Order: sequence, then C-alpha cells, then structure tokens
Amino acid sequence: MSVEQFGVVPDGTDATPGVLAALQYCQTHNVSCLVFPNGRYDFFPDFAKDLYLYLCNNDAGLKRIVFPLIDFEEFTIDGQGSEFVFHGLINPFFVSKSSSITLKEFSVDFERSFHSEGRILSVDDEGMDLHIPEHFPYKICGGLLRFVGNDSAVESSNSAASRLVYGSNHLLEFDTTERKTAFMAKDYYFNGTASYPAREIGKRTIRLSIKGLTGKPGNTLVFGPNHRNYPAFVLNESRDICVESITIHHAGGMGILAQLCHNVHIDKCRVTPSKGRILSTTADATHFANCTGLLSLTDNLFENQGDDATNIHGVYVQIARMISSHELLVRLVHPQQIGFDFIHEGLEIEFVDGRSLQTIGEGKVIRKKPLNKEFTQIVLEKPIPEGLTVGDAIAANRDYPEVRISGNTIRNNRARGMLLNCRGKTRVENNYFHTPGAAILFEGDASYWFEQGGVSDCVIQGNTFDNCLFGVWGKGVIDVQAGIHEKRESSRYNRNIVIKDNRFIRGNQSPLLHAFCVDNLQWRDNQIEASRIDNPESPFIISFCSNVSIKDELYCETDPLPNLNT
Amino acid sequence: MSVEQFGVVPDGTDATPGVLAALQYCQTHNVSCLVFPNGRYDFFPDFAKDLYLYLCNNDAGLKRIVFPLIDFEEFTIDGQGSEFVFHGLINPFFVSKSSSITLKEFSVDFERSFHSEGRILSVDDEGMDLHIPEHFPYKICGGLLRFVGNDSAVESSNSAASRLVYGSNHLLEFDTTERKTAFMAKDYYFNGTASYPAREIGKRTIRLSIKGLTGKPGNTLVFGPNHRNYPAFVLNESRDICVESITIHHAGGMGILAQLCHNVHIDKCRVTPSKGRILSTTADATHFANCTGLLSLTDNLFENQGDDATNIHGVYVQIARMISSHELLVRLVHPQQIGFDFIHEGLEIEFVDGRSLQTIGEGKVIRKKPLNKEFTQIVLEKPIPEGLTVGDAIAANRDYPEVRISGNTIRNNRARGMLLNCRGKTRVENNYFHTPGAAILFEGDASYWFEQGGVSDCVIQGNTFDNCLFGVWGKGVIDVQAGIHEKRESSRYNRNIVIKDNRFIRGNQSPLLHAFCVDNLQWRDNQIEASRIDNPESPFIISFCSNVSIKDELYCETDPLPNLNT
Repeated sequence: MSVEQFGVVPDGTDATPGVLAALQYCQTHNVSCLVFPNGRYDFFPDFAKDLYLYLCNNDAGLKRIVFPLIDFEEFTIDGQGSEFVFHGLINPFFVSKSSSITLKEFSVDFERSFHSEGRILSVDDEGMDLHIPEHFPYKICGGLLRFVGNDSAVESSNSAASRLVYGSNHLLEFDTTERKTAFMAKDYYFNGTASYPAREIGKRTIRLSIKGLTGKPGNTLVFGPNHRNYPAFVLNESRDICVESITIHHAGGMGILAQLCHNVHIDKCRVTPSKGRILSTTADATHFANCTGLLSLTDNLFENQGDDATNIHGVYVQIARMISSHELLVRLVHPQQIGFDFIHEGLEIEFVDGRSLQTIGEGKVIRKKPLNKEFTQIVLEKPIPEGLTVGDAIAANRDYPEVRISGNTIRNNRARGMLLNCRGKTRVENNYFHTPGAAILFEGDASYWFEQGGVSDCVIQGNTFDNCLFGVWGKGVIDVQAGIHEKRESSRYNRNIVIKDNRFIRGNQSPLLHAFCVDNLQWRDNQIEASRIDNPESPFIISFCSNVSIKDELYCETDPLPNLNT
Repeated sequence: MSVEQFGVVPDGTDATPGVLAALQYCQTHNVSCLVFPNGRYDFFPDFAKDLYLYLCNNDAGLKRIVFPLIDFEEFTIDGQGSEFVFHGLINPFFVSKSSSITLKEFSVDFERSFHSEGRILSVDDEGMDLHIPEHFPYKICGGLLRFVGNDSAVESSNSAASRLVYGSNHLLEFDTTERKTAFMAKDYYFNGTASYPAREIGKRTIRLSIKGLTGKPGNTLVFGPNHRNYPAFVLNESRDICVESITIHHAGGMGILAQLCHNVHIDKCRVTPSKGRILSTTADATHFANCTGLLSLTDNLFENQGDDATNIHGVYVQIARMISSHELLVRLVHPQQIGFDFIHEGLEIEFVDGRSLQTIGEGKVIRKKPLNKEFTQIVLEKPIPEGLTVGDAIAANRDYPEVRISGNTIRNNRARGMLLNCRGKTRVENNYFHTPGAAILFEGDASYWFEQGGVSDCVIQGNTFDNCLFGVWGKGVIDVQAGIHEKRESSRYNRNIVIKDNRFIRGNQSPLLHAFCVDNLQWRDNQIEASRIDNPESPFIISFCSNVSIKDELYCETDPLPNLNT
C-alpha cells in the first residue's frame, strides 16, 4: 500500500496527518507494507501524536511522534530511497510493543539541527570570534547568544515557529578540513544553561566571551544541544526489528535507541551529517539498554555523531533503603534512566556490590510497588543476601543477548566507537575504526552511569584500528575499564576477551590496550603498523588483571601489580 | 486523625512518605480530617507521587506531588498553624476530581526559592554590580551566572541536591525600603535562557554584564524563574473547595490555581514573602480558569507576588481548520494552555470573531477527537455559523461563576490587582489596593493570551485605591481593555460596570479610569483625594464606549470619539 492513497505527496506540505491515517489503516487492515514513492516528505509537529516517553540515556518528556508504531506486527515501511525531513520539535519514530517490523530505504533529517556550528576566526585568552552560517540561526540579546528556529514561511504557520529556542550547553571543536573532532579537543560543558555570553561583531560574526577556550582558526566549533529530547528511532519493548539501508543525517539525541527489545538488526545504515553540517546525531549513533536475543550491527557507517557509535548495556538500580529481610527500596539514579521500567514481578535479578561490582547473590522479584518514576519498592522471593547494603545495586539477570558487530565503519565522531557491555557472546569482526577515543570500550559501573556491563565471551578479530585515540576519550584503543573502587585485587568484571588478527595503524603514542580488572584476555596475531622508535612507550597498560596473554612482535610492558600472567 | 499515627513528626526528616500513607488511609477509611500537630514539617521530592499535569497558565510537566488529593470527598487538612517547608523540585498540593475539601491553618514555603534576589550596588551603561545573599546560592562559570540549589547536608542525601539549577530569564527591580516594585520599574525578559553573562568581583558580589539595565543602588533586583513549574496549590476538576487561613510564602508559579472547578473559597489567606525575600510567589497569587459556581476571595492578603493577585477567566481555542459544515479543528495556542482539556461531548460553546471578540453564534459539541494536547477535532450538532473562519475562536458557554471579592489587601506585587474576566455576577467590595499596575483590569483576547473575559454585571464599591498604577502595567487604576482589533465601533466586550463609593488616593498622574469598548459604565459617588492642580491631566480616558456615565466632583474629559454619552 502506498502513502499516496492517503493524500501524502512529496510536495513540502505536512505529511504527518496522512501518514498517521495510513498507519492506522495498515494496522486495522493488517497491511504488511507501507510504501513511500521516492521523493522528499516533510513532517511538522502540529498534528503528530503525543506521548510521554521515558527514553533510556535520552531525555524523557511529552513527545510529538510522526510514526507511532505501537502494537504493530509484521509490518514494513519502505521509503524507496525517499528523504524524510522533520521540522521543529518532533520525534520521528517510536516503535513500541511491536514485532517483526522492518524500516528501510529512507533518510531522516531535521530542517534545523538541534546543534549549531560556527567557524573559528580567532582565539585569545578572553574568548573566540566565530562566523556562524545562515542555517544555524541565532539571536544575541541581553549579552547572550541564543540559537533559534528558522523563520521560513512554511514553518511560521506551524507550531515549529521561529520563536523556538535551540538551547546549547556544550562546546566541542572539530577539524573542518579533516571533518572530525580536532586533535585532542576537549569538551566544554556549561550545565544548567541554554545560552552563552557573546556580542555581535559583524554580519553573522560574533565574539564568544568565555575565558580559556582553545581552538584553531578555521576549525569548527560545535554548539551541542542541552538535551537529548529528539532521538530519530526509539525501539521500545519490541522484538524482531530490522532497520535497513536507512540514513540518519541528524537527531537531537541518539540515532537509534533500543530499550527492552529482543532481536534488533541494524544493517547497511548510515549515520552521517547532511550538507553544511559537520555533526550528525548529537548523541550516540545506536544504543541498546536491557535488550535480549540477537543484536546485530552489520555493514553500517557511523560517522561524525556527537557520541559513541554504540553502547550495549544493562541498567542498575541502586538500593536506597533496606526495608525488611525480603523488601528493598530501589532507585534509578541517573536522570536519563528515571522511568526505565525494567523491574517486573518474576524478574530474576543479581545483587551487586556497588563499589567492587562483584555479584553478591541472585534473587527474584515477586512483587513491586512503584512510588514514582525514580523509586520502586520490591519484595523478593528469598531473604536479601548477607552483606548487601544501601548503595549496592541490582540488575536484571536476563537472557543476555548475542552481539554481532561486523563490517562497520566508525569514524570522526566524538568519543568512542563500540561500548561492549553485554554478557552474551560478543563478536566484533572486520570493522574499520578511526575514533578520537577508545575504538572499543568495556565499562560498567554502579556509581555514575549505572550501566551494567561485564563481557564473558568476546572476540575482536579482523578489524582495522586506524590511528584511533587521537582525542581525550580513553586510555587505550581497546580499553577495558569499569567503575571498580574497592576489591580491585579480586574483582574481575570483564572476562574472556580475545583480540586477534586485527590491524593496528599507530601513528601516535596512544596505548593499544588498556586493561583493568580483567580475567582471561588474549592478544595474539595482531599486525601493528608502527615503528618501535616512533612509539617508545609500551602500547599495553595492564592493571589488576588475571590471565592476560600478549603475543605479538611488539614488546609488552606491564605495571608492577601482581596479577598479570603473560 | 493525626499524622503522628503515621510516623510524621516535625523533626526535619522527610514527612512525605508518612503523609502519603496517611492520605491513603484517610481515603480508604473515610477519615474526614487529617491533623498536623503544630510544628515545622519538611517535604522532599524523593518519595512524592509523580503525575504529568497540565496546569493552565503554569507549566505542564511530570510533577512530584506531596499532597495528591485525588478522588477525595469531604476531607479536611488542618495544619494547626504548622509550617510546611518544601525542598527542591516539588509540587505541594494537587486536588483533583474531589469535592468538599478544606485546607486550613498552615503555611507553605520552599527552603530554596525558585527566584533569586540581589542588592544593587552600582549601575552603569555596561551593567550592574550586585551583592547576592547567601540564601540565593549561585555559581559563575564560563562567564555565566547560574543560580543553584542549596548544599545543605539534609538535601544532599536526597534528589533535591545541590546540582539543581534554578534557571532565570526575567529581571525586575524592587524598592528595598518600601518593599514593593520600584517606581516605574520595567520587566527585562531574556527568553530562552537560564543564565546571565556575569563575573565574580568579590565575595558574593558579581558584575552583571547586560547593557541598558536601570536600577537604583540599594534596591533589590529579582531574578525571576524561567518556568512556572511549581504552583503551591492546584485545584483541578473539583467542587466545593475551601482554602482557609493558609499562608503561601513562596511558589515557583502561582499560589493557588483553580481550573475547571465549581465553588472555590479562599478566605483569610496570606500570600507574603518569608524573611529575607522580597518576592512571594513567582506568578499570580490566585488564578481561576473555566470555573463555575461561586468563587470567593475574602479577607486575604496578597502581597509581593510576581504577578496579579487574581485572574478569573475562560479559555479560547482557535479555529485552525474548517473541515466540513459540522466539523472543525481547534487549537490551544498559548503554550501554557496546551493540555487544558475543557472540551467534551455535550459542551455548549460560543463562536467568537477572533479580531472583534464579538459572538458570532452558539453551538454544541457532539463528538471530539483529540489529535494531541494542542489540536482537537470537534463535530458540532448544527452547521457552523456563517462568517466563521480560521483564526476565530471558541469558548465554553458555561454556567459563568459568581465572583465575590471582598476585604482583601492587594499590594506591592508586580503587575495588577484583580483581573475580572467573568460573565457572572461580580462584586468587588471593601478591598484595599496599592498595586503598581491597574488595580482592576478587564481584558480578554483571542489572539495572544486566549483568555475569555467580558463582564456582564460588575459592581466595584467601597474599595480604597491607594496610589495605584505607580508602575508600567496598565492604563488606568481601573482599566477596561480587550484584544479588539476590528469593529471597535460596535464591539462592546465588557458591559454593565458600576464603580461607586470608592476612595481613590491619587498622588501621581495616573488615570483613574481607562475604558475601551465598554457598554454601560457608571462612575458615581467616588471620593477622589487629589488636588486638581497637582493632577492637571484628566483621570478618565474613554474610547469606543457606549453609555458611560461619570458623576464626580472632578472634571470629566473624554476623547473625541463618538460613542460616549455622559
């Protein structure tokens, strides 16, 4: 079935009402595929469906959704190569409680990006002069720079009008020529604001009056948004979802967020900025929270996004109060996890020492009473294990997913490549990485991000790591970290990591491997293209590990700690 | 029943969980009164109930509510003179779908106010130097002044922690000695931000780098919040509500908002700042939207609030699209009205010319289909009246309430006293006004605020108007305005206003009466204390009116327009 039958035509008018009617028809009549004849379709928030959404690692809120695929089964949206252009404060896709959904062959962009960019003209101790291109409209008033919406005729008749403010609280320098984050550029955060002290010094030229900024004339300063309100695709409590051959040029948050889903495949997609922008999505290209089944990322391009290419993790709640031998009060601590509703009756859980991340025991939830979106009271089947205290954590002991990451190109974004925090079989093969931070990071903590990690079977092979870690986000091209503050001698949060047959191009001094609190790590048959003379530092930093084996032609140096067995 | 029975004690610990348990018990067991033994009770947001609320003329959002009185009947909360102190981002009272509720004998305050204040030290063309007292914590970072939460030990263990930002986007000067808005002080708005360009110049002393600010050294600059998220009392879809002998020291929004309620009585209450602050609530003291029955405001004190003492009005939706002879798409246009759900099947409505505010016809809604919280499709019983077009408006043709306002003192706040926009019998008697704007304003428009007004039977008598209109907010001490942009010759939006037996103390040049598009206004037997020599300007400005009669010892001057019949 074609959207044309619902009056949707690629003529610049608002396609939203027609698309909503088409979706409703498809659902009611079990239509299996909705086709968009090739063209550019525009979407405005006015008539979009609104729902209050809790979005893990993005911002909760009342969203205006153009494609609300809720309770759909066996349904495909085929864009036939169309461009979908979204206007104003709008959320493109929300797939929830659905199964066997395929989204394919279209691009997603926003007419006005949630971030803004400026070309650096000069820098001194007191601030920076910048030229801001026309497609990032702004106003300076009361000594404050505020980015605003477009004033185009088509928008002013809609609620996506020019009065909109595109608040920013983060600055980051990009190399304009190389089209990637500038060498060793660091994040500037301005929490709790939406604007910057500035004055106009010429036509679309401003003086940013912030002391201590660094930057190279000619480079691009990216003004990151002060929110993650508008991820492009949210997949929620659904199964068997395929996102194929889709280009995400932009999102005000993550590109694809999958939470509490089973079997998600992202294949031949591209996250890449559209013309005139250096940033694509303002946060992670993809992100998976408490998913199960098989998660695959194959043959995708993830470039220039504002955060990692992916992060596959669980969520910890913190124990806020011990009520009785069988009862606990737990809390979702991270503000962007509030409302992440993974606890249910019958849930198998693990109890975790919040400081060492060691598992203290296991249990089962038999009743829950949510106090609000932050705190939940739970009743357990068996007594709470000995030693558990306030500040410790609980995570779902789920059917951890199998992860397949292959054939992807990850480059030029802020921060890291792949964050592997999944206990299922994890295979990372034949990818190309050129990331300013760690290409692959293993993390997990129960004290800040509250992301459950800890791989148990991970093979990284056949990849090319091309001059990674040219920025500040990591301690090694492959970086095994974890928020382990106590019992480092015994806590082994990540286990069974094999790194083999990869190619490392090492033009800088960055360590190739940083390993912390790992058990059983094998490094073998990797080709390292770097002269020992150019890189006198050891490429391996290993601490608090057991059973680490490094077999390569390069020398291996370890710190004086006791647990390294090579 | 006492809250003591639920472990609630006035000892500084979080009383919220105990209060929630007590309320649940009272509801389940039909307890008619919950008593707080006299003392100070503290409330934190952690364990409060959360609900997404749409609050007319305040900001919608997910709120943490301490007193959620939902589906209560015949219930009293008796504070016995207690102080209720709220911490952090928290909403004190939400009364919804309840009847016969009395709230009495306690005070409401916030430990950290949503606004901040600073003492003006000096002013020049480039900005202002200020001293900011300790109870308004702030940080200056990256050239930006941001107000933040308190760092007290008791709060840091809760989610009301010091990382909170108290965003501000409005500045207004107050006279520190007189404790009221400064003479002719004007509002400075900084839409779309939360912070100001500033630098530290001494201990708790800052330089605000905003050009063109005016202010007198010694006076107080109030930094108004950039939201109305935290009104103290919200009364929603309820009937027979009494708020008695309650003091509201502060709210991050309005003091008392009643929406879609029937019979609301506010008696012997005080809206007044607590020690060390010059501002009380950051918005209106009280506010009524689409209420019915009897609304009474008797013997209250409303002082130093950030906006009007009251506003009693209806809400217009705008016609966004004509779908068919019986079908319309309507829109809630004002951002703070989105989600105000007054349209229902069976609703009697009036159709209003959006430019002249003249009623075009009447009708009845027989079906509604909400598209989202902004747009609703409605089906009418009869054809849409001739002449109605996109941009015109619809309001509920309700049983307009009777309004009794007597014995109140209204002074020293920003803006106006009473906004009378109610078509029922309206009596304003024996009040004292010392307001910087109009003491009494009649408004209504279908183009900006979308507030339905237009009195039909209003008597203002026995009041004292003491040197009102010493600020910028109005055209007369009694000010009849309306958003009438066309057909001024025939549109008579406000009708039948009698102003008699009042005392006007007129130490300045402000007009006593400004009347626009009124039919039948009588001014008689008012005592005006001012010398004609000191006040050479006419105190009466009348335009586009019919049947205006002014009988007083002072001269009466009219503009040259034709419809004045004295």
